[in-house]
Amino acid sequence: SEGSVVLIGAGPGDPDLLTLRAVRALQEAEVIVHDKLVDPRVLDYARRDARRVYVGKSRASHTCSQAQINEILIAEARAGHRVARVKGGDPYVFGRGAEEIAALRDAGIRTEVVPGLTAALGCGAAAGIPLTHRDLASGVTILSGHGLKGEPALDWSALARLNHTLVIYMGLANLAFLSARLIEGGLSRATPAAIIENGTRPDQRIVAGTLSDLPALATARGLTGPALIMVGDVVALSDALPEAARKRLVPLRFAS
Amino acid sequence: SEGSVVLIGAGPGDPDLLTLRAVRALQEAEVIVHDKLVDPRVLDYARRDARRVYVGKSRASHTCSQAQINEILIAEARAGHRVARVKGGDPYVFGRGAEEIAALRDAGIRTEVVPGLTAALGCGAAAGIPLTHRDLASGVTILSGHGLKGEPALDWSALARLNHTLVIYMGLANLAFLSARLIEGGLSRATPAAIIENGTRPDQRIVAGTLSDLPALATARGLTGPALIMVGDVVALSDALPEAARKRLVPLRFAS
Repeated sequence: SEGSVVLIGAGPGDPDLLTLRAVRALQEAEVIVHDKLVDPRVLDYARRDARRVYVGKSRASHTCSQAQINEILIAEARAGHRVARVKGGDPYVFGRGAEEIAALRDAGIRTEVVPGLTAALGCGAAAGIPLTHRDLASGVTILSGHGLKGEPALDWSALARLNHTLVIYMGLANLAFLSARLIEGGLSRATPAAIIENGTRPDQRIVAGTLSDLPALATARGLTGPALIMVGDVVALSDALPEAARKRLVPLRFAS
Repeated sequence: SEGSVVLIGAGPGDPDLLTLRAVRALQEAEVIVHDKLVDPRVLDYARRDARRVYVGKSRASHTCSQAQINEILIAEARAGHRVARVKGGDPYVFGRGAEEIAALRDAGIRTEVVPGLTAALGCGAAAGIPLTHRDLASGVTILSGHGLKGEPALDWSALARLNHTLVIYMGLANLAFLSARLIEGGLSRATPAAIIENGTRPDQRIVAGTLSDLPALATARGLTGPALIMVGDVVALSDALPEAARKRLVPLRFAS
């Protein structure tokens, strides 16, 4: 029979945040190809007899190169298997899903993409931080906190001018750099900002402060896990923060 | 017993894109408060004996004001009911969810937010358009295409400078305005752009062209439904477009 590959967005961590379609696609797969960012509890929805292929990929250690992952997917599909390629978050947001789909399409493999909750959404709900707000953030901008060669080259002043909630993925290692560039770009040092570590998981931690003091807070709290950084006045609305922290972060626009 | 309100993100339309937690929350609710953007098939997951309260809200006709909606939610919860407030997409992305949560919290009502797939993710997968891409879009920026008084006041040159995929919600009525401002702001007239109408639903339609000709295409095709606008080189990768359209939209960066 003809093989196929479905790219499944596994969401931010909490398996309850899988979509119905993702669960169904997991249950239909004969081969599961997954990486580090996928919560093990998500894979519990797979069939017991499904073969699992771990292809690694954390920021530090690339177990498989992207080319190798593509080769594995193509080979498994050509062998006639229904393959589920499971990715954390959404396959089309920093997941290199587009590259995998392009490689598979070039190889003539049937593909499907099942969207998933990207971390910004899961962490927003879990941390009580709205991503937009009529008075505080006219939109949301999602960016990567690391570039191909380490620190990202971004248009900091354009980002500062948007009046958007900025959501930074994979930015913890470069947090001091990001904070400094955004302030140089024009954001107030007092802009509320938070780090959500292991968002939506039982070990979730939230550290909130201002854009200027967040790097020191992250170091003091010893954050190391997968983390999302949120920058913007909406952070001060978080109902997950202690009252004292919220008061300190009162949105500038509401200050006298 | 104590009442409560859960804000549920119902996703972009296709009920298969509900999360497991959203389905569970729907099934637990005694009162369902919903608006126009929620697909009727989503509400099929509610209990049969749940009471449904329609609070309207399309762009044109506000059946209930936000203040009235807040009052309904507070009154139902104070009557001891478990209330599900169901919103299209994600409650914290242009859903005014933050305002409802704030009103409920002020009233002492227990609340919970269940995140949902915002339309950008659902439409990206359904239209075969990746939101980020290592070569074509370093991030994704989500904005509203209508302002409090009609046309939105945005920083067009900042948006143009981001090199992000721009995803515009509720922008169809202002499409000619948006296209002109983004071009004035610095985006190429030839930037690939698409409209996804009724994204993820059986009646989904995709119209793709360039940033400059998209308004005329939208008029010619008679688009009227809930629609998402995507602007950026990634649109040219859509596997939902006919080959000829894709060729015409070849990303500038790859052109000779």
